[in-house]
Amino acid sequence: MSQKHRRRKNMKKGLPPGSLVYTGHQMDSPAQVISIAYTDTAFEEKHGYVPYLLQKKHGILWTDVCGLTDTKLIEQIGNDHQIHPLALEDVLDTQQRSKLEEFDNGLFFIVHHLKVDSAALEIHSEQIALFAGKNFLVSFQEDPDDTLAPVRKRCEDGFGRLRKKGSDYLAYALVDLVVDSYYSVLDDLETQALEVENSLHSNGALQETKARMFALKRVFNEFRHRLLPLREAVTRLYRTESDLVEDSTRLYLRDLVDHVAQILDGIDNQRDMLANLEALFQAEAANRLNNVMRLLTVISTIFIPLSFIAGIYGMNFDNMPELHWHYGYYVVLAGMFSAMVGMLIYFRKKRWI
Amino acid sequence: MSQKHRRRKNMKKGLPPGSLVYTGHQMDSPAQVISIAYTDTAFEEKHGYVPYLLQKKHGILWTDVCGLTDTKLIEQIGNDHQIHPLALEDVLDTQQRSKLEEFDNGLFFIVHHLKVDSAALEIHSEQIALFAGKNFLVSFQEDPDDTLAPVRKRCEDGFGRLRKKGSDYLAYALVDLVVDSYYSVLDDLETQALEVENSLHSNGALQETKARMFALKRVFNEFRHRLLPLREAVTRLYRTESDLVEDSTRLYLRDLVDHVAQILDGIDNQRDMLANLEALFQAEAANRLNNVMRLLTVISTIFIPLSFIAGIYGMNFDNMPELHWHYGYYVVLAGMFSAMVGMLIYFRKKRWI
Amino acid sequence: MSQKHRRRKNMKKGLPPGSLVYTGHQMDSPAQVISIAYTDTAFEEKHGYVPYLLQKKHGILWTDVCGLTDTKLIEQIGNDHQIHPLALEDVLDTQQRSKLEEFDNGLFFIVHHLKVDSAALEIHSEQIALFAGKNFLVSFQEDPDDTLAPVRKRCEDGFGRLRKKGSDYLAYALVDLVVDSYYSVLDDLETQALEVENSLHSNGALQETKARMFALKRVFNEFRHRLLPLREAVTRLYRTESDLVEDSTRLYLRDLVDHVAQILDGIDNQRDMLANLEALFQAEAANRLNNVMRLLTVISTIFIPLSFIAGIYGMNFDNMPELHWHYGYYVVLAGMFSAMVGMLIYFRKKRWI
Amino acid sequence: MSQKHRRRKNMKKGLPPGSLVYTGHQMDSPAQVISIAYTDTAFEEKHGYVPYLLQKKHGILWTDVCGLTDTKLIEQIGNDHQIHPLALEDVLDTQQRSKLEEFDNGLFFIVHHLKVDSAALEIHSEQIALFAGKNFLVSFQEDPDDTLAPVRKRCEDGFGRLRKKGSDYLAYALVDLVVDSYYSVLDDLETQALEVENSLHSNGALQETKARMFALKRVFNEFRHRLLPLREAVTRLYRTESDLVEDSTRLYLRDLVDHVAQILDGIDNQRDMLANLEALFQAEAANRLNNVMRLLTVISTIFIPLSFIAGIYGMNFDNMPELHWHYGYYVVLAGMFSAMVGMLIYFRKKRWI
Amino acid sequence: MSQKHRRRKNMKKGLPPGSLVYTGHQMDSPAQVISIAYTDTAFEEKHGYVPYLLQKKHGILWTDVCGLTDTKLIEQIGNDHQIHPLALEDVLDTQQRSKLEEFDNGLFFIVHHLKVDSAALEIHSEQIALFAGKNFLVSFQEDPDDTLAPVRKRCEDGFGRLRKKGSDYLAYALVDLVVDSYYSVLDDLETQALEVENSLHSNGALQETKARMFALKRVFNEFRHRLLPLREAVTRLYRTESDLVEDSTRLYLRDLVDHVAQILDGIDNQRDMLANLEALFQAEAANRLNNVMRLLTVISTIFIPLSFIAGIYGMNFDNMPELHWHYGYYVVLAGMFSAMVGMLIYFRKKRWI
Repeated sequence: MSQKHRRRKNMKKGLPPGSLVYTGHQMDSPAQVISIAYTDTAFEEKHGYVPYLLQKKHGILWTDVCGLTDTKLIEQIGNDHQIHPLALEDVLDTQQRSKLEEFDNGLFFIVHHLKVDSAALEIHSEQIALFAGKNFLVSFQEDPDDTLAPVRKRCEDGFGRLRKKGSDYLAYALVDLVVDSYYSVLDDLETQALEVENSLHSNGALQETKARMFALKRVFNEFRHRLLPLREAVTRLYRTESDLVEDSTRLYLRDLVDHVAQILDGIDNQRDMLANLEALFQAEAANRLNNVMRLLTVISTIFIPLSFIAGIYGMNFDNMPELHWHYGYYVVLAGMFSAMVGMLIYFRKKRWI
Repeated sequence: MSQKHRRRKNMKKGLPPGSLVYTGHQMDSPAQVISIAYTDTAFEEKHGYVPYLLQKKHGILWTDVCGLTDTKLIEQIGNDHQIHPLALEDVLDTQQRSKLEEFDNGLFFIVHHLKVDSAALEIHSEQIALFAGKNFLVSFQEDPDDTLAPVRKRCEDGFGRLRKKGSDYLAYALVDLVVDSYYSVLDDLETQALEVENSLHSNGALQETKARMFALKRVFNEFRHRLLPLREAVTRLYRTESDLVEDSTRLYLRDLVDHVAQILDGIDNQRDMLANLEALFQAEAANRLNNVMRLLTVISTIFIPLSFIAGIYGMNFDNMPELHWHYGYYVVLAGMFSAMVGMLIYFRKKRWI
Repeated sequence: MSQKHRRRKNMKKGLPPGSLVYTGHQMDSPAQVISIAYTDTAFEEKHGYVPYLLQKKHGILWTDVCGLTDTKLIEQIGNDHQIHPLALEDVLDTQQRSKLEEFDNGLFFIVHHLKVDSAALEIHSEQIALFAGKNFLVSFQEDPDDTLAPVRKRCEDGFGRLRKKGSDYLAYALVDLVVDSYYSVLDDLETQALEVENSLHSNGALQETKARMFALKRVFNEFRHRLLPLREAVTRLYRTESDLVEDSTRLYLRDLVDHVAQILDGIDNQRDMLANLEALFQAEAANRLNNVMRLLTVISTIFIPLSFIAGIYGMNFDNMPELHWHYGYYVVLAGMFSAMVGMLIYFRKKRWI
Repeated sequence: MSQKHRRRKNMKKGLPPGSLVYTGHQMDSPAQVISIAYTDTAFEEKHGYVPYLLQKKHGILWTDVCGLTDTKLIEQIGNDHQIHPLALEDVLDTQQRSKLEEFDNGLFFIVHHLKVDSAALEIHSEQIALFAGKNFLVSFQEDPDDTLAPVRKRCEDGFGRLRKKGSDYLAYALVDLVVDSYYSVLDDLETQALEVENSLHSNGALQETKARMFALKRVFNEFRHRLLPLREAVTRLYRTESDLVEDSTRLYLRDLVDHVAQILDGIDNQRDMLANLEALFQAEAANRLNNVMRLLTVISTIFIPLSFIAGIYGMNFDNMPELHWHYGYYVVLAGMFSAMVGMLIYFRKKRWI
Repeated sequence: MSQKHRRRKNMKKGLPPGSLVYTGHQMDSPAQVISIAYTDTAFEEKHGYVPYLLQKKHGILWTDVCGLTDTKLIEQIGNDHQIHPLALEDVLDTQQRSKLEEFDNGLFFIVHHLKVDSAALEIHSEQIALFAGKNFLVSFQEDPDDTLAPVRKRCEDGFGRLRKKGSDYLAYALVDLVVDSYYSVLDDLETQALEVENSLHSNGALQETKARMFALKRVFNEFRHRLLPLREAVTRLYRTESDLVEDSTRLYLRDLVDHVAQILDGIDNQRDMLANLEALFQAEAANRLNNVMRLLTVISTIFIPLSFIAGIYGMNFDNMPELHWHYGYYVVLAGMFSAMVGMLIYFRKKRWI
């Protein structure tokens, strides 16, 4: 994250607000544009940017831009759709938080499609910006891999409500797709958390478990920091007074708000669980130290006094009568043995061994 | 939990919003439907789905569905009662949070009937969805065991206010039944917490107590995460401006809000108590380590110097005059004994032994 | 607490809402009722329930019920004063949170009179329910000991404003009496906290102090959980739009809100203080462990190497020239002594001894 | 604090609300009253209470009471200025929280002038109550030392805006003086915190630093608990709709709100810093324990095995051929020396020594 | 920080509110003033304060004051622009929190330009005050180094929207410049945090890492405390109802609010990360202690019993038959060796070595 920030700072320093500079992933493949126009009954899809489709009076025009390297094209698309320069700047600056902004001629939505790398416990994020106006929607995907394809497919198939409704429902469908990716991330992370928990309870390798646990805590923190602005944005979308959003769509938006809240719930639940695990881990580590110290103490308490007695009879004084007793050696051995047994019983009673 | 999520993800991926897929417990027994129609004076109960009852002008029709495996039947019931597809989808998706949603023709309520397994410290949840319209109520129970039977019994007996009031009061009575199950769970968990506390104070087996304590913390966290959305939903029901809810019912809803707040209070109280116990546990573990270390130190401090003295007189130098003193051995023994007694007094003074 | 909950659950299971079942302390002595009627100039007090007093046009009728075992009488009193069944149910269910509920014909207030057992650090609570209507007030005390007597005395004496004002002021005076009991509890607990603090600073018996500290934390938590709903209730009373509350009384209610806030402040202050003490306690325990370990280390570091040297010259090799030196023994002794002194100086410098 | 509470409880028990009992510092010197009347051009100051000044139509009358032991005089002043009994009660009860209360005929403000005893780390508080009406202000100072003198001086000198404005500005000037005392306290405490931090970083006497740190945490907690109600009161004063406060004064009140927020900021900053210090302290203590244990382990690991070898050759078996080798002793010495050097190198590599 | 506070206290004590005393950095160089007047098409820049520029009807006059040592000049500028005395006082008192204040004739903004010293982990702050009225803006920079130069340059170049818009946009551009400095600080601190994390994972020098980590936590805390009032101020600017702010500028202000929220997000994320690191650090320290103790225990457990056996056969009893066995020595050696191997296997199994 810090590299990106630093790059942005260096690239944008001294430029006035609204300057278009792309700060995201650098890709070799050129940007791809897919232009779609559909009505309830018709569907037309062209590769490349086809602005004249805008002239059609009826139906929805959806311009889907995959990859943001072609700044000029994006500027042109922005101008054709009268997207405000500040919004266009945000499209290209891929370090934005999720947000909804209302402009006079449309709603501007920034969301992030997430994938989690379960092995490295890292979240990969692709910024997706949507500008939904009357009868049109422009989507900007940071990466060229076509994340929004499932919705385009549904649109082409004419299955469900998508074709019968306006650009607001299309925007909803796209955001819903993105929110679904959060469910995937939550599922994957929950699986990881479960593994850490099981590993801790089975007293496996404590060190690896520890590293994994802290990495999980970190990634849950990051996940939560990504979700909070999304919740704000989705709630604002649901409550917007813009007449772009039809009443019949609002029920679906409420559903969306619910989903985000449900994911946040899941995250908070897992965070509580991990905090609990961490406390358990600390208690376990303290317990292990305690066990180590007990063993040391048992051994020392038994043998140090005995060694001392042996040392006594190893002294070379001329006049040590015990040394000359016939059974002196056996008496001492017996005494040592009794002491040892006594202490073993004592420690057993204290449940140390 | 994570298994369910994952299953849902796989089952629903690529489907448009509003698709009906059941994601809950898989049961062998078929879904059961009980249709009830009642007025102040009459009561009629039929097994199976009897839609024509709807035609009756007077009285309330309550359709109670136990088990959600028969998706087609549920879709038909939904259509007959004009339940919105999004609500129907939520009925089948049993991972919902508790919530209240208002539709034009009715109130849609999702709650969860809880049971706690005191031995395993796990919460079992059954999702119950209610759709209350003018003169009718449809209830969908996830499991085939008839959780809502007590209310049906009260309705049949005509005891209390149930038969005299509308579908809003019926909905209240059902939610109240569910909230009562939370009291049971809280009671059971409080009993467990009390046992853990007693076990800790009686210095019982620290390790088992620890495991139990952390398991309890976990289950209280989960309980709380389940209650928070319920509080929101119940409060919203109390404050709804829908004309489905009569003013005389509102007093009962206020009571319901109170009950949920009381349970939350109890949970927070227990959580504070458990946090306190955990700190006590840590202090206790630290104390035990301290005791172990003190014993080790006492033993070492007494015997290591004495052993050293014995070692001195075990050296084989030709010229060690003390060895040849007649009472040298006794002098040394006496010195050792005095040192030992002195150190014992010192440690006793420091309260180490 | 959990016993009460469980009892309630068992006793009320399956009953419809509004059923009257007493769940509180079981007392042998029967319930006592004192009926009082007063105006600015007159005062009349009768033992037993005297409903006809209600007929009097002028003045205030105060019915004071001590002990709730006589469910029938309470039901009758409720009917006579038109108290809503839900309110009556709450009167008898003594596990309620403090709350204010507004009914059409009066205000219903539940508060708890607290006493603290300083030795056992337990809070004893007596639920007091007030129903204040136009010209009358009914008070229900859980226990037969007459907690509200001071207000009755003031009323009888005609001292202060009580007789000149309406039932709202009487309700205020009663709640004020209860809030005063919270000051007592806070004072007692603060005294206990001060003792724990002094004991900790004087390095007294750490174990007993620890137990006391955790018990105090627990009781402060419980105290706070009891106060939070009271604050809500009192604030709602101050802000109520009911015309039962006269403007001149509102100033007193504001004072009440202030008092509750002040007590909460005191609790939070003490909780912060106890958290601080706990951290201090932990630091102290860590310090003691450190001291123990240092002593062990000093002793071991000094004597283990010296013992080793003594061991060397205790070996039985034929050819060990040092053994035959005339001053060998003294040289070794001197060397050992220097090493010991050197290490003592070293440890002194490190401030270990 | 607890003593005061307890005294109050005992003194006020059984009295009706509004009874005037002084609960503050007991002073030998009698209460002093200074009466001041001023207009834009004139200034008159008399010792003693001069109520007829109230008759003057123009100008502001400021009655400044230092010391609250003369309850009768205070009651008379209260009656003359029509101060509500509840406010008068609060004047005398010096355990009030800071607050603003609006009465029909004036604003009643309770603030606390703070001084900090840097050595003992205790906050000394003097309660100051202000009642500002149209054209008059009465100030009640708990202690006879004249805390408000600087404002009286400024008023006498006619410097600044004080004489040109109304009683609202006078009240502002007095509260501003009090808030200035909070800056002093914050400065002093910050200096103490800085010293603790420096002492911790310079690895000074850990025990004294620890005690100081916890005392500082405690005093910052108390300071914060005193400021929170003040912020509430000052904000309410700024937002009051009372026509006593002129619009031109409101700008100054906004400034006051700002100052309190700034002090709270400073406190929170210091609290975060102290929490950080505490964590650092714990880490430092753990580190020291670690160092101690390492030294013990190094010494033990080196010498215990060597002592064992010496012990072997100290055994008295008849048949131990090594003992009779000519260089046996030297071989063993050399072996011991190598082992010692090897272990030293090993520990050096592990950075233990 | 505390020095500044203390200086202010001493310098301002006893002065009435609104007195102009400079409390900031003391500089030798005199204050510099740059006067700029511009319209859409023209641009004029003069060194020194040129008040008559104010007379020009068209265009914006920007007076930029660098360095605040010349109190008289500042007072004159304040009078010429009718800046309220309280605002002027805040200009000179450089310990202000960021804030926005609305006056009748303009908006007054205090912000802080931050720089971070990455080596010492200290934040250097320069207070910048802006007073934006109709057609004019006065900026006061605490330090003489010209922080606002980039905006002046952009204004001179006529690049972007700056010259086409009013004083509200100029104010926005200046605040935006300052907020950009927060991005720099966040970037630098994130880099430092990353280094600490890497160093911790690579098990580098734990002590230096620890010091660095705590210093970072501290500086993040301070950073956050600086940002919170800025967020409040910027949000208030965005929502102001003052007609000085044109609607077209509001979109840019919304962008500014977003930026501040994004920085706060970044800070919170880093703080969570550092808290996680701290827990990891503690776990690591506990782990190291555990390892040390294990080594000690392994060595002691192996050699102390063996030494005891050697001690036995070093005793000088006359009658110890084993000593005279021909292979006694070898039998004992073999026994010792087996015991040692057995214990090594045992410890290996427990994964201690």
